Amino acid sequence: MTGLLASPAALTTVTVDDLPALARGAAVLGTGGGGDPYIGRLLAEQALREFGPVPLVSVADLPADACVFPVAMMGAPTVMVEKTPSVEIIGHAVTVLAQYLGVTPTHIACIEAGGINSTIPIVAAAQLGLPLVDGDAMGRAFPELQMVLPTLDGIAATPMSIADEKGNTGVLSTVDNQWSESLARSLTITMGCSAIISNYVMTGAQAAGGLVAGTLSLCATIGRAVEDAREVHGDPVEAVRSTLGGRLLHTGKVVDVARRTTTGFARGEATITGADGTVVLNFQNEHLVAWREGIPLVTTPDLIVVLDSDTGEPVTTETLHFGHRVCVLAAPADERWHSPHGIALAGPRYFGYDTDPVRWNGAAR
Amino acid sequence: MTGLLASPAALTTVTVDDLPALARGAAVLGTGGGGDPYIGRLLAEQALREFGPVPLVSVADLPADACVFPVAMMGAPTVMVEKTPSVEIIGHAVTVLAQYLGVTPTHIACIEAGGINSTIPIVAAAQLGLPLVDGDAMGRAFPELQMVLPTLDGIAATPMSIADEKGNTGVLSTVDNQWSESLARSLTITMGCSAIISNYVMTGAQAAGGLVAGTLSLCATIGRAVEDAREVHGDPVEAVRSTLGGRLLHTGKVVDVARRTTTGFARGEATITGADGTVVLNFQNEHLVAWREGIPLVTTPDLIVVLDSDTGEPVTTETLHFGHRVCVLAAPADERWHSPHGIALAGPRYFGYDTDPVRWNGAAR
Repeated sequence: MTGLLASPAALTTVTVDDLPALARGAAVLGTGGGGDPYIGRLLAEQALREFGPVPLVSVADLPADACVFPVAMMGAPTVMVEKTPSVEIIGHAVTVLAQYLGVTPTHIACIEAGGINSTIPIVAAAQLGLPLVDGDAMGRAFPELQMVLPTLDGIAATPMSIADEKGNTGVLSTVDNQWSESLARSLTITMGCSAIISNYVMTGAQAAGGLVAGTLSLCATIGRAVEDAREVHGDPVEAVRSTLGGRLLHTGKVVDVARRTTTGFARGEATITGADGTVVLNFQNEHLVAWREGIPLVTTPDLIVVLDSDTGEPVTTETLHFGHRVCVLAAPADERWHSPHGIALAGPRYFGYDTDPVRWNGAAR
Repeated sequence: MTGLLASPAALTTVTVDDLPALARGAAVLGTGGGGDPYIGRLLAEQALREFGPVPLVSVADLPADACVFPVAMMGAPTVMVEKTPSVEIIGHAVTVLAQYLGVTPTHIACIEAGGINSTIPIVAAAQLGLPLVDGDAMGRAFPELQMVLPTLDGIAATPMSIADEKGNTGVLSTVDNQWSESLARSLTITMGCSAIISNYVMTGAQAAGGLVAGTLSLCATIGRAVEDAREVHGDPVEAVRSTLGGRLLHTGKVVDVARRTTTGFARGEATITGADGTVVLNFQNEHLVAWREGIPLVTTPDLIVVLDSDTGEPVTTETLHFGHRVCVLAAPADERWHSPHGIALAGPRYFGYDTDPVRWNGAAR
């Protein structure tokens, strides 16, 4: 038995059996980033087998005075697939920060949804014997540390910890969340382009206001919908689309991928040609803008999701390759991302694209 | 009255009147690096005028259980001359680290000798109302953080603090002192190529073993020797040479300087042509190798000092310019730098020069 239900009902426990669906669904919400779901699943599996299942607590059920420690991997996904994080340092990032703050964590949380970044917190929760919050700080993945909904609420990213697999750690205190990103990114790069971070420590009340509720349950639901569709020889891509409430943007073959790991990110663009012409995706860890003939079809903060056409498996930006037949979906982001502050933080102009935001359904902001 | 004596007798207090000679002498020992003595003097003057004179404690007089906090500026001297450190953050770096460690500093110390890095600790001592140790951790300046004599004694650089003028701070804990350099350097670069650090916190007993004794008194003696020579229309360059116990390597005119600020350092080479031919100096913040026709005349760890031919003023690498008439001196480093570990840490091969060490007097190691 698993804690997973075929309906969108909430998970109450994460077990080893939940991981394949959960990691797959997390990679869908990762919009190309957030890490490889296969590696993410293996990490969590190792931790759950050693420490047992992790209880999930809904955002609504968090005590107001809970002490919530988010944890994530920071770096370039292109590196993470070659340099798998060691399980040991994941919990270490949390304990380093807890000791610095002189507080005792009561809950672990996800900073973002993604194939690795939805499972790293499962590892930390298992190691530390703490419950995990069924939610995350983005409702998707974004490339930079300040791009979380708690930033919109004025919650500080720091004090934050950072830890690498060699045993180096740091604690940063910055004047704003953009500086947290800049300084943590430079440490991450020097640490080898991947590191574990813990930041945005929140009370339960702050987490209830700042997090997206139910993300891990949604990940499991998405992942299970793909499995269910395959079992009945249905359409797994359509299963993902209907679960997300999005639209099918494009179907075609990857005819070109330009990818470079620079300034600590996997940056590039993918060109996908099909019956409806050519769509170009720009990414920085995550897909940020989908273009057709120079016209933006969908932009960040809404979700651009690439799936294998046949299997519905999410395709992360670091594994995109020539000849891959894929479908591109667009889906709505949490509505808070469409506020003026949200757009300033993670809209297309922040990333240097000279376009107003275009929503998943093609509507202007 | 000043605390300065014309003889090499020890200073017991640093007053505003001591600063011109002290900063000048410090820049001599800085071997081209360690910061501009004019800026260093101004910083210390501001602090001493506000907080009063700073008592100096000789290394031999340190209580064994003293808690010694070294402090320095980290970064590229080319940037420091444009972005002067604010006095406030200097003491802040010490208090951040003291709070992290949960200890109360009893003494401040210098990490290196240099126009700024011998005066930054005066500022910290004045601000915090603490005595300053008459010594430093190198007996000269070196470009990288792990290049201190305490590293030879196995003393850890971390936990260390880093602070910038914007208010950002970090505390690093690393697996070795080379990693301290790498991670602190990347933070320094992102902070704008200059930052204040406090590291190598030592007991009095460790400091007595690891520091070079009497550095600040020596700085003042060198600086005063230059003044004295000028007053009697003597030879200030010869005054520095005889105080250091070095030799005159070359006299000439700077005919070329190639300088770039890269990877957080001021790197480059200066070509000086005179009656005895051409000498080329390679530097990375500090002068590292002096060459004549491809033959190394002197190498790190011994000191290569460039002085204005007429005035005897030390010339830092960031102010070297075409047409400047200069003398190049060579002088001995602390003998511990010539141990195998010392040479591995700061000898010419570490910096990529394919030569064995050559001592100040031209002797092979």
